[in-house]
Amino acid sequence: MSWTVYLSGEIHTDWREQIIEGCKAKNLPISFTSAVTNHDASDAAGDGLGEESSNFWRDHKSAKVNAIRTKTQIEKCDLAIVRFGDKYKQWNAAFDAGFCAALGKPYITLHSADIIHPLKEVDAAALAWAQTPQQVIEVLEYVVSAQ
Amino acid sequence: MSWTVYLSGEIHTDWREQIIEGCKAKNLPISFTSAVTNHDASDAAGDGLGEESSNFWRDHKSAKVNAIRTKTQIEKCDLAIVRFGDKYKQWNAAFDAGFCAALGKPYITLHSADIIHPLKEVDAAALAWAQTPQQVIEVLEYVVSAQ
Amino acid sequence: MSWTVYLSGEIHTDWREQIIEGCKAKNLPISFTSAVTNHDASDAAGDGLGEESSNFWRDHKSAKVNAIRTKTQIEKCDLAIVRFGDKYKQWNAAFDAGFCAALGKPYITLHSADIIHPLKEVDAAALAWAQTPQQVIEVLEYVVSAQ
Amino acid sequence: MSWTVYLSGEIHTDWREQIIEGCKAKNLPISFTSAVTNHDASDAAGDGLGEESSNFWRDHKSAKVNAIRTKTQIEKCDLAIVRFGDKYKQWNAAFDAGFCAALGKPYITLHSADIIHPLKEVDAAALAWAQTPQQVIEVLEYVVSAQ
Amino acid sequence: MSWTVYLSGEIHTDWREQIIEGCKAKNLPISFTSAVTNHDASDAAGDGLGEESSNFWRDHKSAKVNAIRTKTQIEKCDLAIVRFGDKYKQWNAAFDAGFCAALGKPYITLHSADIIHPLKEVDAAALAWAQTPQQVIEVLEYVVSAQ
Amino acid sequence: MSWTVYLSGEIHTDWREQIIEGCKAKNLPISFTSAVTNHDASDAAGDGLGEESSNFWRDHKSAKVNAIRTKTQIEKCDLAIVRFGDKYKQWNAAFDAGFCAALGKPYITLHSADIIHPLKEVDAAALAWAQTPQQVIEVLEYVVSAQ
Amino acid sequence: MSWTVYLSGEIHTDWREQIIEGCKAKNLPISFTSAVTNHDASDAAGDGLGEESSNFWRDHKSAKVNAIRTKTQIEKCDLAIVRFGDKYKQWNAAFDAGFCAALGKPYITLHSADIIHPLKEVDAAALAWAQTPQQVIEVLEYVVSAQ
Amino acid sequence: MSWTVYLSGEIHTDWREQIIEGCKAKNLPISFTSAVTNHDASDAAGDGLGEESSNFWRDHKSAKVNAIRTKTQIEKCDLAIVRFGDKYKQWNAAFDAGFCAALGKPYITLHSADIIHPLKEVDAAALAWAQTPQQVIEVLEYVVSAQ
Repeated sequence: MSWTVYLSGEIHTDWREQIIEGCKAKNLPISFTSAVTNHDASDAAGDGLGEESSNFWRDHKSAKVNAIRTKTQIEKCDLAIVRFGDKYKQWNAAFDAGFCAALGKPYITLHSADIIHPLKEVDAAALAWAQTPQQVIEVLEYVVSAQ
Repeated sequence: MSWTVYLSGEIHTDWREQIIEGCKAKNLPISFTSAVTNHDASDAAGDGLGEESSNFWRDHKSAKVNAIRTKTQIEKCDLAIVRFGDKYKQWNAAFDAGFCAALGKPYITLHSADIIHPLKEVDAAALAWAQTPQQVIEVLEYVVSAQ
Repeated sequence: MSWTVYLSGEIHTDWREQIIEGCKAKNLPISFTSAVTNHDASDAAGDGLGEESSNFWRDHKSAKVNAIRTKTQIEKCDLAIVRFGDKYKQWNAAFDAGFCAALGKPYITLHSADIIHPLKEVDAAALAWAQTPQQVIEVLEYVVSAQ
Repeated sequence: MSWTVYLSGEIHTDWREQIIEGCKAKNLPISFTSAVTNHDASDAAGDGLGEESSNFWRDHKSAKVNAIRTKTQIEKCDLAIVRFGDKYKQWNAAFDAGFCAALGKPYITLHSADIIHPLKEVDAAALAWAQTPQQVIEVLEYVVSAQ
Repeated sequence: MSWTVYLSGEIHTDWREQIIEGCKAKNLPISFTSAVTNHDASDAAGDGLGEESSNFWRDHKSAKVNAIRTKTQIEKCDLAIVRFGDKYKQWNAAFDAGFCAALGKPYITLHSADIIHPLKEVDAAALAWAQTPQQVIEVLEYVVSAQ
Repeated sequence: MSWTVYLSGEIHTDWREQIIEGCKAKNLPISFTSAVTNHDASDAAGDGLGEESSNFWRDHKSAKVNAIRTKTQIEKCDLAIVRFGDKYKQWNAAFDAGFCAALGKPYITLHSADIIHPLKEVDAAALAWAQTPQQVIEVLEYVVSAQ
Repeated sequence: MSWTVYLSGEIHTDWREQIIEGCKAKNLPISFTSAVTNHDASDAAGDGLGEESSNFWRDHKSAKVNAIRTKTQIEKCDLAIVRFGDKYKQWNAAFDAGFCAALGKPYITLHSADIIHPLKEVDAAALAWAQTPQQVIEVLEYVVSAQ
Repeated sequence: MSWTVYLSGEIHTDWREQIIEGCKAKNLPISFTSAVTNHDASDAAGDGLGEESSNFWRDHKSAKVNAIRTKTQIEKCDLAIVRFGDKYKQWNAAFDAGFCAALGKPYITLHSADIIHPLKEVDAAALAWAQTPQQVIEVLEYVVSAQ
């Protein structure tokens, strides 16, 4: 059985690459999906559909174009990794976690110990909490290949 | 037809009371539900089930006890209002929004204009964005009682 | 058992009133729900949330506020009556019919014989086609009260 | 990940071909599905099952045979493009949009600006509105291949 | 808790009345629903929507009008009793049983021992097989009122 | 897109072979599935799990073993063909039709005109009624390969 | 909002009565449901449908009659309490927990600390673990009535 | 059609290997999935995510990591075999059976005759009860390859 893992959240560090490379090094049968992680491209996703004078509607259009991708990827994944970094609001990551929870889709949170308290509801619906990409890789290895 | 509206998010201002009182004053057929909004009581929700030495597990237990209530209330509501204030991480509010989105449950966001950008994914799946409780009351009045 | 019937479509003739009055005269245990049928109020449903300079976004906001009501009402109804008149595009009526079809929600179409051909897909998923409100009333009487 | 895109609506212009060719030119991993677009063949879809003397039943039989195809294709697609041209009632396109909305299936509308108002409910549930096939191609390219 | 029980199948003996009276005599908190059991009325259910020259379409229209009632009643029931008598094809009863099975709705079959073999698939998905209305009443009493 | 078609019902004539051969001759991208059609093998499906002294339980065990196959095949098919011959009760065919109807799975009935009346409920939920395997083949060809 | 709580598991101690009385004493708006807890009556639930010579089929019939009640009650409850005592296999309690988990229905386990290890999968999907009925009552009070 | 079969339960005898080898010998088109069956590895599944001082939380973390795998495998299987041996509590096996039942996923139980009574609820929702791996292999052969 091959697995599809959706990588949600923070786009300012290389945690995605670490997980992808780590799993590749172990030859795990996992395909990874993700939102577009180029910040400028993501913010401009709807620009081709016409200029907007209001920030709200520009953001709205781009967020919806991005949702075509992310909603589909989340619904098709077997597991999501939801990463919270130490900067920014990151409400989209918590939104993805809630989306997974409602679908009964398993997810693992990835965040440091200093944000345990504000993430308690998000962690409560998760199947694991990891603090490092290396821990995620180990869990993935166990889940997809242990006997 | 009577409506059930779930009030999610910020617990440090009186937006819930404003909405509830405003709807009561208009005699709208709406029942409101909500997480426990007493911060200390909410953090201690699981304490009766045994002491924990680790912060993570204390939070975990309380968050799950709270989830018994909030998950049920969200699944039974007709509409949710999701409030983001100007302080704190408020990831639980974004989580609730994602949960609603996955269930196809309509929700209205309530937040000021200065956090439009970080909330763009949450707003993209909402059916309305309001900036004041008074606007929410007007939308509710229209939705449940206009002819 | 009491029934909830959603009345969808044309707002320029009194077909809703005929059906509601006809069922009331027969004492049928039916509650009726409907979108807001005041055209101007419906078009302005989102205006209270802020002015828009673009027609598209004004319509968008109002349509979404209306959807809070109609989506909920359709999901809660036992049966929908979908009316197509002889004027206007009435794409919202066909949209409601498709929404019902996907949910497995029974619906009856109400339209004259001269638009059979363009409505063939909509009629194909319906459980009945009526040409007059009186026929709808008779079907409703049979469905909810025959022995 | 490969994508399946359902092309719904207008059959009198070559918008389908433009989108299919445009995506092929960019080597996008997309399969396209569609109702039968030969108007006469579509109207005669049920004729082989026996002659009908009434227009209603001839249309009914053909519409149902077509529904075997379109219902299955919509349920299996990842995304639908729903096109409204400047002629005809096109209720089947709005019906498909409502069907997608109820299933939580993302769709993009494709229509000119002069029919914004009658399509406001259909656009309100869409994830994007495009005015040209070229815009659709650009959105598709972004959604399926941006990093 | 009150229960809703759908009574499906044979309309030529008084098994429905026996069960309803038997449960009433025991004061069980059960509401019963059923298709229209007047054979002529049922066959004519669609006649008010216009005359048909073909038997197939007359039957088709009436069967669909009846389905508005029966589909809704089955989806709302807690339990169905599906009765097979010793005459007629009774394919509608087997159809109702399959409908219940797919919905995960519990049902009890009621038939004599001489048709065990042709009903084996229908019985295999049932939660009980009874041979007399009295047995059904006893099972109902146990299910809804035992401590 | 390839299609999976489930063939349900009568096992005493060669209608399955006619359809399968006819589609193969046209190179249609269709896989066919079916219950075990060897009558004796089907009746003995559960015998390996232990002897039964009662006819009811022998049938029960075999019917359930067969259900492992048929339930799975129906849930995975894109379309079912449900055949009613001129002999036997064939309640399993009507049961399969009801199962398909509740799942929203399209099906075509295949039967002669003399049993229109007892099959009216089953036909009412079907997307087509055919009288010959050749008609079924033509519908399949149209559905899966017309442009 | 009133709550429905299903009480699953052990029938040899008075934990059900303690919880019901404790909630009544606090005037909590909770209705309780439960399997039939009279052991002999439960084992004989199917006896009225005919004698069986084999233990397996006697148990099978009774278990299915009981399932009419328990399956319906679990599907209708808002929350389940699943009790494991210190005797017997109690596989039905674990079965109910798995059933709840698959439905996304919240449940609380109630068991002593010495069976933590064999119950780890059951506890992992629960929203709380309590060791005494008094703890359950306190959680219920918080969940249904805290502000 | 190829089948996926999930093997749940007892890990102390070689029943899994017998079934897998037996099906391989017959060239059946079946893929098998299973929880991790190395007892120590399974108990330690969460250890890499940090040490725990409490047995409950160590078990909890490991059980959730294991659930990422088992929940996904059960939801993707076509059929489960649930094995109960003669030792230990094996509540996880009963939990898996309940999970399958709620999803409408067929399962076969595998256990000896001396535990019929405590397994009656689990067997009542199963589609077959086998006493030996050889019987399971024969049922699988019939289900996936008989004509």
